[in-house]
Amino acid sequence: MISLEEEIEALCREAKTASRELARLEPAKLDGALEAIGRTLEAARPRIEEANRIDLEAGRSRGLGAALLDRLHLSPKAFSSMLRGIEEVRSLPSPLGRILEERIRPNGLRIRKMRVPIGVIGVIYESRPNVTVDVAVLCLKAGNAVVLRGGSEAFHSNSALARALAEGLERAGLPSAAIQLLPTVDRASIPILCRQRRYLDLLIPRGGYGLIETVVSHAQVPVIKHFQGICHVFVEAHADLEMARRIVLNAKCQRPAVCNAMETLLVDRKIASQFLPGMVRELRGRGVEIRGDETTRLLGGAEVLPATTEDWATEYLDLILSVRVVDGLTEALSHIEQFGSSHSDAIVTEDRAIAEEFLRSVDSAVVYWNSSTRFTDGGEFGLGAEVGISTDKIHARGPMGVEELTSYKYVVIGSGQTRE
Amino acid sequence: MISLEEEIEALCREAKTASRELARLEPAKLDGALEAIGRTLEAARPRIEEANRIDLEAGRSRGLGAALLDRLHLSPKAFSSMLRGIEEVRSLPSPLGRILEERIRPNGLRIRKMRVPIGVIGVIYESRPNVTVDVAVLCLKAGNAVVLRGGSEAFHSNSALARALAEGLERAGLPSAAIQLLPTVDRASIPILCRQRRYLDLLIPRGGYGLIETVVSHAQVPVIKHFQGICHVFVEAHADLEMARRIVLNAKCQRPAVCNAMETLLVDRKIASQFLPGMVRELRGRGVEIRGDETTRLLGGAEVLPATTEDWATEYLDLILSVRVVDGLTEALSHIEQFGSSHSDAIVTEDRAIAEEFLRSVDSAVVYWNSSTRFTDGGEFGLGAEVGISTDKIHARGPMGVEELTSYKYVVIGSGQTRE
Repeated sequence: MISLEEEIEALCREAKTASRELARLEPAKLDGALEAIGRTLEAARPRIEEANRIDLEAGRSRGLGAALLDRLHLSPKAFSSMLRGIEEVRSLPSPLGRILEERIRPNGLRIRKMRVPIGVIGVIYESRPNVTVDVAVLCLKAGNAVVLRGGSEAFHSNSALARALAEGLERAGLPSAAIQLLPTVDRASIPILCRQRRYLDLLIPRGGYGLIETVVSHAQVPVIKHFQGICHVFVEAHADLEMARRIVLNAKCQRPAVCNAMETLLVDRKIASQFLPGMVRELRGRGVEIRGDETTRLLGGAEVLPATTEDWATEYLDLILSVRVVDGLTEALSHIEQFGSSHSDAIVTEDRAIAEEFLRSVDSAVVYWNSSTRFTDGGEFGLGAEVGISTDKIHARGPMGVEELTSYKYVVIGSGQTRE
Repeated sequence: MISLEEEIEALCREAKTASRELARLEPAKLDGALEAIGRTLEAARPRIEEANRIDLEAGRSRGLGAALLDRLHLSPKAFSSMLRGIEEVRSLPSPLGRILEERIRPNGLRIRKMRVPIGVIGVIYESRPNVTVDVAVLCLKAGNAVVLRGGSEAFHSNSALARALAEGLERAGLPSAAIQLLPTVDRASIPILCRQRRYLDLLIPRGGYGLIETVVSHAQVPVIKHFQGICHVFVEAHADLEMARRIVLNAKCQRPAVCNAMETLLVDRKIASQFLPGMVRELRGRGVEIRGDETTRLLGGAEVLPATTEDWATEYLDLILSVRVVDGLTEALSHIEQFGSSHSDAIVTEDRAIAEEFLRSVDSAVVYWNSSTRFTDGGEFGLGAEVGISTDKIHARGPMGVEELTSYKYVVIGSGQTRE
């Protein structure tokens, strides 16, 4: 019997071999495979929905909460949206082979910087089964093979989806090893995946503290973390308070469970007594629990709970908001520097100089002026689909789309040049 | 007494604080610091040369070889070239604040992708003391703080250089903590540096197998490896053999101790008997030791030593060349795939289709057609100076110049947009 380590290594080796084959294909051939995948998923729909039912039942009997069951559920709507997503990715222009720069040197050498696939990408994710398809399809569009490690609660759904993906690849004449799902939910598989230096070119962990911690402490391959979003909105003294009100409601309430939702509201002391009482009332009316500092509690009334230091550092992903009154831009900046997660942060103000100072100083993937933080998303940015939101600064920052899943190489064309 | 761990952590923390200050500066201010650094280095020249003499004497008494002593020596010529390098970097256009893309979305959001510094970069290098200055100056130009860990044999030279760099920063009104040299050559400092997740944004190890292995197995921060160059020249059946002769001599002999020099020559069987005997003779005449496969030994005569599998995987960095006769493109490609280091590989041929297949299939940072591999270099590519040659595929590939030492962030400007 082979060990888990040997099994995972073999699977990554096959992905590497497949990636070499993909790298030589024309983009049209990859698009053909995406089309075939759409068809095999459609055909396998009953089988996939059946597998999803098994996961849902197991989840229910294990006592999973409603929110988690909802994420797990591959509803007819979610299935159709998944199929539409494939079509959208297929219709994106391929970045492969694109010449990013060309220089002709004084010695006549023609130096071209050309987009190429990265190779094999490992993606570790937790929740929804449709991520299996979204991620596989994006990686394939960029010419990469992918090794997927989904959440244990979605194992049957993911397996059925992966089988349909492999059938699509085969039907298009591509190696089915280009999309691999780890055939196990053993947690030991994560450190093993982290060690596959010979075969993996990049590892993308999408998830919370525990997962990121495991990956970072074991990884021997390059990692781009998709970590949490502790997003701030700072309502500055010169804000249009009606605009601020709409932005705050949107950033907190429109979809609280996602990483680009606001977790902390910072309010300039100068306008706090004018802004906070009504804002707190309105948020409370929408069912938001408020945890505030002393001034906020003073202004917001008895319904505001006291915030602890831990609150400033917490990604609630829920209808909970921490609120702090600050002395102007400087204190807002140091709060964000200390507690932010370098994801998305916004200022609301009509003062251009203060806005520009905020945009320059906040070291986050996306900084907003007079906008909700909820737009940090590949689709909203016009990148097409996304594999997630990078909270790292190397290679890709913010939404990672097809282009961010590529590398480049230099192609140098000469006529016999030698160096003096 | 504080521990080595605490000392290094404190130093990285100071670099982080300094990096925040640098990120807010205008590029002109950074250029002013580069100018000041040039002046303080010039003023400290006697002190630095004295420190270099101490290292050289210690090296001699420890029995360092001539090549290593030569690398260690900060000759008047090397010193002047180092100062000229600073001036060149200063005169490069700054990438900071540059808008890489701008999209105006249907909802009116203006999304700008803007070049920003990475933050704090750790660089671990081995040999020459002038690297201390080259790397510090490039990082500073890109708005980054840097933590340097040089080779033990150059410790006095590096310390004297770092002191002059700090003086230059202070004179320009910048925090001297922006350029830090580890005040120790204890090997334990490398794993400690690798764990500074809170403060380091990137780690660049430049060196051989041992160093890279240590860094990769300990790193908890993103790493861009500058590993070895096992570079190939493939003389294909349709090559202009006179051109091939010149390229082979240049790639092997012009400067054998650098990473972009050729280590393995692959020759198409069809022209081997025509090409190899003369080529071997000429290389031997230049003092090159040849290690060949059976066919090469048959054609090259008694002076060709037998090559082992280990030879194909060895970066000699010396006047030694391994030579193998292959059956056309396919065998050349699989040899490079198996033994190459993804650095720089060249084909010599007059057949465009074969050349294009080679350029597409070889998965290296730089692929050449009818050129010596010796051009893989920031200066030769027109990037200005370089911090080294990345052999990784994430973030930067091949020569890393100022631009590759930056990240980006999205700056989004709205007028109250909220998400539906």
